[in-house]
Amino acid sequence: MTTQQLIDQIKKKKSFLCVGLDVDLNKIPQHLLQTEDPIFEFNKAIIDATHHLCVAYKPNIAFFEAYGLKGWQALEKTINYLNQNHPEIFTIADAKRGDIGNTSTMYAKAFFEDLAFDSVTIAPYMGKDSVEPFLAFKDKHTILLALTSNQGAFDFQTKLVEGKELYKQVLETSKTYTNSENLMYVVGATKAEYLSEIRQIIPDSFLLVPGVGAQGGNLQDVCKYGMTKDVGLLINSSRGIIYASNQEDFAQTAAQKAEALQKEMQAILEA
Amino acid sequence: MTTQQLIDQIKKKKSFLCVGLDVDLNKIPQHLLQTEDPIFEFNKAIIDATHHLCVAYKPNIAFFEAYGLKGWQALEKTINYLNQNHPEIFTIADAKRGDIGNTSTMYAKAFFEDLAFDSVTIAPYMGKDSVEPFLAFKDKHTILLALTSNQGAFDFQTKLVEGKELYKQVLETSKTYTNSENLMYVVGATKAEYLSEIRQIIPDSFLLVPGVGAQGGNLQDVCKYGMTKDVGLLINSSRGIIYASNQEDFAQTAAQKAEALQKEMQAILEA
Repeated sequence: MTTQQLIDQIKKKKSFLCVGLDVDLNKIPQHLLQTEDPIFEFNKAIIDATHHLCVAYKPNIAFFEAYGLKGWQALEKTINYLNQNHPEIFTIADAKRGDIGNTSTMYAKAFFEDLAFDSVTIAPYMGKDSVEPFLAFKDKHTILLALTSNQGAFDFQTKLVEGKELYKQVLETSKTYTNSENLMYVVGATKAEYLSEIRQIIPDSFLLVPGVGAQGGNLQDVCKYGMTKDVGLLINSSRGIIYASNQEDFAQTAAQKAEALQKEMQAILEA
Repeated sequence: MTTQQLIDQIKKKKSFLCVGLDVDLNKIPQHLLQTEDPIFEFNKAIIDATHHLCVAYKPNIAFFEAYGLKGWQALEKTINYLNQNHPEIFTIADAKRGDIGNTSTMYAKAFFEDLAFDSVTIAPYMGKDSVEPFLAFKDKHTILLALTSNQGAFDFQTKLVEGKELYKQVLETSKTYTNSENLMYVVGATKAEYLSEIRQIIPDSFLLVPGVGAQGGNLQDVCKYGMTKDVGLLINSSRGIIYASNQEDFAQTAAQKAEALQKEMQAILEA
């Protein structure tokens, strides 16, 4: 998917919501556990109920891998279901991979070719030759960790490297990578006050923003400091939407939560 | 596996060799492609031929994920084969994961419980709460990226953070994490000259050292600067061993390459 197609979808749906699919068998409605593939059935119900309210889905790969072969099977079924039924929706493999060149190429093949995701999240620690193999894929997007939403972000990311915070060095250095136009960045909503400085370095890039909702981030602040003329934001909510109810009505309740966020986004877009 | 069991195995086998399993269907002997599961058959043949010469195997998870469901199945079969037939061998899931707390717990379950690896490689970028969930598992080992063997290591890892290189900050900070005795570290053989300074920060920790062979690192230098009284090193070779031949004799040729390294290690241990 091209960035322009993503922007068009945002304008059409008046939404820049991304729904995170972190499927934990201990948290999903008990009646689904009787089905043959509870993880996929849960995802399918969430997708069916929310696809008109969001522009992206972000399966969290850890939550599939933890269930081994069955988990990987459910991941395949989920991305295939999305690509077949909602090809306009942007898909994010939240995998946080990153390794030396030939290994990164294999990860890129896994997520861009075998699973046919539009994008994948990548850790920057190993530098240029760990990121560029992902950037080589046309119309695929590499979402680099910059400033994450967790407390551990202060361990290294905000430390001064040659006078400038490490996450800013990551932003600046990554702009020099070949095919850097295929980069997006993760910036946590819990650190919205950092967004104006981030926008000075990457004025137009899309940001994937986790941490609204369960982690305490604020949508208004993120938009105030981070929005571009083409929106430039994908706001992720996972637990706040998909686990709003664990009863039989879970999908409708998820849709209500997604709609509340979509309405808030629409109001911001129309303001 | 406890660290002491690993040390005992090293002393018994007079080897601290780790064989990396990076199975690429374009590189393995063509006759294996006729079998039902070429990835597993390749791994099994390599393991059968080399298990007495090495103390660890390191499947590179990217090379399994790139083949989707079949790849994951081959990974399960490979680790099960190792655990059933060679329970004394240390197993490393080279996965380079790292995410916020609850997600890291899911990755830890995937590799320590579902797949029953002894250890997993982890990227440090997201800090304490992304690493500690792995450290909570008893007799499991978390191998943190410190100074990697690739060129991109110079992008951020060697940059000065408050007067000290980032990789040294990672080493020092990680020592303060809960259960830090379960930490090992990745240090590339291509940067052997950094090892004496690294040993000042982590005098006893095991290091996983990739980059000997195909990437140009030198075993003698790594041992000179990095060895401890309990050896403290796992030297990884992947392509230099497993792709030494792509003919029917591939496993025997791999064993010859592994034996050459083991003999070199034995000479160092007996010196």
